[in-house]
Amino acid sequence: MRKILVIGSGKSTSYLLKYLLDKSASEKLFITVGDIHTDTAKKLIGNHENAETIILDIFNEIDRKKAIKNADIVISMLPVSLHIQVAKDCILFGKSMVTASYISSEMQALDAEAKARNLIFMNEIGVDPGIDHMSAMQVLNRIRDDGGKVILFESFTGGLIAPESDNNLWNYKFTWNPRNVVIAGQGGAAKFLQEGTYKYIPYHRLFRRTEFLEVEAFGQFEIYANRDSLKYQSVYGLDSIRTLYRGTIRRVGFSRAWNIFVNLGMTDDSYTIDDSENMSYRDFVNAFLPYSPSDSVELKLRYQLKIDQDDIVWEKLIELDIFNAQKPVGLKKATPAQILQKILMDSWTLDKTDKDMIVMYHKFGYEKDGKTYQIDSNMVVLGDDQTYTAMAKTVGLPVAIATLAILNGKIKTPGVQIPITKEVYTPILKELETFGIQFKEKEVPYLGYNSLNN
Amino acid sequence: MRKILVIGSGKSTSYLLKYLLDKSASEKLFITVGDIHTDTAKKLIGNHENAETIILDIFNEIDRKKAIKNADIVISMLPVSLHIQVAKDCILFGKSMVTASYISSEMQALDAEAKARNLIFMNEIGVDPGIDHMSAMQVLNRIRDDGGKVILFESFTGGLIAPESDNNLWNYKFTWNPRNVVIAGQGGAAKFLQEGTYKYIPYHRLFRRTEFLEVEAFGQFEIYANRDSLKYQSVYGLDSIRTLYRGTIRRVGFSRAWNIFVNLGMTDDSYTIDDSENMSYRDFVNAFLPYSPSDSVELKLRYQLKIDQDDIVWEKLIELDIFNAQKPVGLKKATPAQILQKILMDSWTLDKTDKDMIVMYHKFGYEKDGKTYQIDSNMVVLGDDQTYTAMAKTVGLPVAIATLAILNGKIKTPGVQIPITKEVYTPILKELETFGIQFKEKEVPYLGYNSLNN
Repeated sequence: MRKILVIGSGKSTSYLLKYLLDKSASEKLFITVGDIHTDTAKKLIGNHENAETIILDIFNEIDRKKAIKNADIVISMLPVSLHIQVAKDCILFGKSMVTASYISSEMQALDAEAKARNLIFMNEIGVDPGIDHMSAMQVLNRIRDDGGKVILFESFTGGLIAPESDNNLWNYKFTWNPRNVVIAGQGGAAKFLQEGTYKYIPYHRLFRRTEFLEVEAFGQFEIYANRDSLKYQSVYGLDSIRTLYRGTIRRVGFSRAWNIFVNLGMTDDSYTIDDSENMSYRDFVNAFLPYSPSDSVELKLRYQLKIDQDDIVWEKLIELDIFNAQKPVGLKKATPAQILQKILMDSWTLDKTDKDMIVMYHKFGYEKDGKTYQIDSNMVVLGDDQTYTAMAKTVGLPVAIATLAILNGKIKTPGVQIPITKEVYTPILKELETFGIQFKEKEVPYLGYNSLNN
Repeated sequence: MRKILVIGSGKSTSYLLKYLLDKSASEKLFITVGDIHTDTAKKLIGNHENAETIILDIFNEIDRKKAIKNADIVISMLPVSLHIQVAKDCILFGKSMVTASYISSEMQALDAEAKARNLIFMNEIGVDPGIDHMSAMQVLNRIRDDGGKVILFESFTGGLIAPESDNNLWNYKFTWNPRNVVIAGQGGAAKFLQEGTYKYIPYHRLFRRTEFLEVEAFGQFEIYANRDSLKYQSVYGLDSIRTLYRGTIRRVGFSRAWNIFVNLGMTDDSYTIDDSENMSYRDFVNAFLPYSPSDSVELKLRYQLKIDQDDIVWEKLIELDIFNAQKPVGLKKATPAQILQKILMDSWTLDKTDKDMIVMYHKFGYEKDGKTYQIDSNMVVLGDDQTYTAMAKTVGLPVAIATLAILNGKIKTPGVQIPITKEVYTPILKELETFGIQFKEKEVPYLGYNSLNN
């Protein structure tokens, strides 16, 4: 039996474990899931003969080293900041390792040691990052192999609510970490390339500079820019590209309404409000509006942000019940972002029967033989239920498939890496298709970037 | 002769030195001005027999210690970050010290040692901070001594252009450090108290939440909130106050136009633009607007910020020549804030004959015998020329007067301090009046805070 150690059994491990368990007999796998709390893992594993759970505290060095030493390969599904200790032990005991997280500088620093010991440290192999890398590189390389020169690449991903569960005015629910949604886009101006020119959008304008998108059978979406669209420019081999833009997908209208919170200052996570515990939702809103002895919080907000009385964004605010003077915030010394998150969780938490949806969309513009072309490529994955979500499927399956491919010697190149080589993405994308994770491509006229038409 | 060492001879030392030189014979003073560059100091001193300049590099420990050891009292007009080494030497050699800067935590940490050696470390005794502390505390204490309970305190200061030199559409020129103007308000939400409620304004709303102000004989002004209006709440003894607001004064209309730069992201100082050296002013503006194959930068800006064609803010932008495609930015890897500063300096640099103006305005609301009252108090100081500016006068004179008062034993209480005790502010405010630095008070009806009327 080949022994796979999975550290961490959070939301995104359901499909990961299912895949490995389903293959365990034919591939001779034994899976050990280690976590401080093993309840979730126990449910997912059931009575499967080729798997076990162990209580594993990642900060307990003896237990951690023992578990890693005993494995043939390690999957770390821990939060990104906790991978590094696992990685160092993997170097120590000569084990390859797989994560779905962005490569930290500490992880990158292990590259030489990993190569020296012929170990594969595969990272960023979830959905975003992960499937975005693989699906983009497959088309980019195909265009280039065919003699084309890539001049435009736009790439968008969104974790959304499935159409059948989409029943609020925001067309949004928390299908993943709510905190990341509340603070999305903060930390500096968004930077990208449009027709050869660097463009910058400050945070407070980010949700007013959206683009639109049509996905066949799923309707219209909108996109706001990611912080750094240029992060993978060189890695993808796009140094001479003219337009490079990456973004996050929401349903149309989300961003304009969300911008009200940004504009008021409610998404700020940099200071705490002293008396937040005793505030009502209404008091919270009022903290961002001038005092008035007579005017209502509602009128002050409408006036400050110039919201017409028949504007649909107003209904979105009402739906969240943010003007309620009876509902207590109930959080001690909380930041505005923490309070807003709590208010949103009242309305945007999934119902038991709700299903999620992952949407990914790429645009590839290229020149060949003096003509311009464009390929649009999109993927939509729907969740089955709240255990087997689209998020868990698109994050967990690439991790699981990559792990088995490494064990079986199909992925051979050692080092700290992300899935951008043909060796890695070709077999993984092919197998993902058998699980319904596939891209639809179509040729469209190349229009270049156009702020109003795109 | 009593020896006064003045370290640093920047813009704000003209009146400081004039005061000390004028008193040098009667008060038996000898003034030594130390700086790396002594040209400015030499011009200000001329051939005065009771003064000298020395070349002093503050980072040269031997020279610094020698100069401080040789003095009876030290005035540091250095940038705030450089006071601490002077202060430590003053502790070492037993000299009192005066600065116009905010107390740093390192400076505050010397309090016990200063007290043990019976030394006075007087700080924040320029104009803002300085005259604001003294003039506010004088009225606050008078109200309290008279049995009143202070319920509102608002305090505003502005360094502006004098009416006779006010000849641009922004009614503003750089009379002080341009960089501080460009990045003003950044670093976190503005916080203040209105009628017992904490209020917060994010940076990108700061210049749209202004208040108005009328100063007799000088017309209308507007105010935007300082970062932390509550900094001196306890120090001033205002823990139970209902409204506490501090702000910066501009002419009406400045903030609305300035907000265009904030909104676009042009005041951001947190990242650099790679190709800034080769940009024109027009390219710089365009970096914050979407690409278009046809639309002009002007139309894109109007559209993005919804600026009507007959809106006066547009003329203000035109006056700054920001759409000029010929004018090069010419700064290597500059931040947006640095580039904007350069553009503004083309238009807002003082002409040789221009004069500056300092405006300060306090509102004191209080209750007494069941009734409410309000006192408004304001000071306007005009500069004489570009050496003897209103800024140099209001910063330098309090420093100089305090220094002499310490030498003469009129200010006795040792320790690291700011000028908020009667012992300090009473004689200084009285003497400032003889230089035309005086407050006009009037009683007005107490209206409380009202967002539209205030």
